[in-house]
Amino acid sequence: MRRLSLSLVCLIFLSLSILSPANAQPLPSWRAGAARTAILDFVAAVSDTTSPDFVPRAERIAVLDNDGTCWCEEPHSASSSFQLSLLRSLVASGRVDGEQMPQRAWLAQDRKALRAFGWSAAYEGMNAAFAGMSVEAYRDSSLAFLQRAHDPRFDRPYTRLFYAPMLELKEYLEANGFEVWIVTGSEQDFVRVLYGEVAGIAPARVIGTWTTPIYSVVEGKPQLVRGKVRVYDGHEHKPENIFVRIGRRPIFAAGNSDNDEPMCLHAVSGTHRGLALWIQHDDAKREFAYSGGSDKIKALCRRSPEAVPVSMKGDWTRVFP
Amino acid sequence: MRRLSLSLVCLIFLSLSILSPANAQPLPSWRAGAARTAILDFVAAVSDTTSPDFVPRAERIAVLDNDGTCWCEEPHSASSSFQLSLLRSLVASGRVDGEQMPQRAWLAQDRKALRAFGWSAAYEGMNAAFAGMSVEAYRDSSLAFLQRAHDPRFDRPYTRLFYAPMLELKEYLEANGFEVWIVTGSEQDFVRVLYGEVAGIAPARVIGTWTTPIYSVVEGKPQLVRGKVRVYDGHEHKPENIFVRIGRRPIFAAGNSDNDEPMCLHAVSGTHRGLALWIQHDDAKREFAYSGGSDKIKALCRRSPEAVPVSMKGDWTRVFP
Repeated sequence: MRRLSLSLVCLIFLSLSILSPANAQPLPSWRAGAARTAILDFVAAVSDTTSPDFVPRAERIAVLDNDGTCWCEEPHSASSSFQLSLLRSLVASGRVDGEQMPQRAWLAQDRKALRAFGWSAAYEGMNAAFAGMSVEAYRDSSLAFLQRAHDPRFDRPYTRLFYAPMLELKEYLEANGFEVWIVTGSEQDFVRVLYGEVAGIAPARVIGTWTTPIYSVVEGKPQLVRGKVRVYDGHEHKPENIFVRIGRRPIFAAGNSDNDEPMCLHAVSGTHRGLALWIQHDDAKREFAYSGGSDKIKALCRRSPEAVPVSMKGDWTRVFP
Repeated sequence: MRRLSLSLVCLIFLSLSILSPANAQPLPSWRAGAARTAILDFVAAVSDTTSPDFVPRAERIAVLDNDGTCWCEEPHSASSSFQLSLLRSLVASGRVDGEQMPQRAWLAQDRKALRAFGWSAAYEGMNAAFAGMSVEAYRDSSLAFLQRAHDPRFDRPYTRLFYAPMLELKEYLEANGFEVWIVTGSEQDFVRVLYGEVAGIAPARVIGTWTTPIYSVVEGKPQLVRGKVRVYDGHEHKPENIFVRIGRRPIFAAGNSDNDEPMCLHAVSGTHRGLALWIQHDDAKREFAYSGGSDKIKALCRRSPEAVPVSMKGDWTRVFP
């Protein structure tokens, strides 16, 4: 009986997938143009067994940056906003000393003082304030933050600040046998909650800056609490961590800044055909216009036909869902 | 046409899975007894939606140790044998100095000298000899080693030193919606090749001791070469690395020594029902008999009904495929 009902479910699912209008016209929020064509051509070529560019399903790995690529990062990334909010609550409850650096500068949002302290040390210092917290409590705090956080400019919850065209792209890639991973400089445990809630991406598929937790047994019960040592996942560390975590070279990458250039260059330099997208923030009206720190990824698009710029203004019919 | 043929393939696959004799009697190499019953009961309970112990598919994570749990580790683990063979070839070609410690002790297999040097430092030192090698060359060497390595006692290639009952268990778990991960103290990049070749496990699903590679661009081409810093994946580091890599607490674990006790204890201490297996080497005739360093996992089996000992001699009708 159970096998039969399983077969029935499978048949219904099959029929739905055959009739689904989403399959009839993929990437509905992408305007016809060079970027959309590049995506469709690439996906068709690597998934067609008769194509010279065919790539076996197991090797169709796609990596997407988060902040500024899938999710609005201005004026602050979701992860930074969450960590600042958590720091404030720990200082308010007296568990963390807000007078010490770098916490004092974080609380005052004093960018000059943070820069002087050193960004890397400043992030390490903030994360040290969360050391000793159970991984479950941190996850619960992340979820609670996402449930209450609201973006004033776009008048919507943080969970709806994903770019609709990128969510469509993720689904389109998955429908064509790709395994989609998020590779972000933001704090991994928070971003896992974000994607688990919104886009149905398993926590294992989120690679971010991480702190290795510390295991101990307290009164017979094993516990994992947050550690202090931070492994940064940006710039050259993205392809390095991708190798540690995935063990294959991606054939598709998307990013918006030089932070993502090594990951994009690596994806288009393998033995398989690759595609890299550079998401440009050129739409001050619907999102933001900025281009700081994207010279290298721009240069990559100039010299490689497999690296393609995407204009938020020109290529997307809508930005948010 | 393509959708129709996809449907056809899916239907054929469904029919096969309904009629497959493997499904008629799972775990054929496991004798009827407490261990087999514990596995069948647990899997039925967590995958039946009407059971109070039901666990959603996404949370059905299983972690299996490699050496001594899925694969024969005596007289040497496959990973150690491979690294020693690689070290020998690098010394022979003059690229590594075999007179320096710890290489001299490794080449002489002088366990006393290695112990005096410190095992951790000895492994670090050996891995330092491979630093700078491209990740592709290391993978190719792993594969070449597996193609030529042969176990004299059992007269079979290394790739056939997996335990048949554990391969059946892996397939049975996957057939019931589990995601199966390998969590090993052995060197990750080699073990990835081993599982990719033999058991069809994706490299991302292999967590082992790793060295983070180093990314650089040489003449416009991005490269990843092996680094020196080693992240050890044993004892308490197994649940720690599982959290970093998977982001969920496993509900099923299997191990053979105290190296695996923290991972097993963690798996049976969550909010979901869990099961941990302790594979005992008590079969000198068909495999090996040894029990060094398994007091903690033995004690776990004594006090927790969710931790179950498995006797290779009593519970398995065969050891190797």
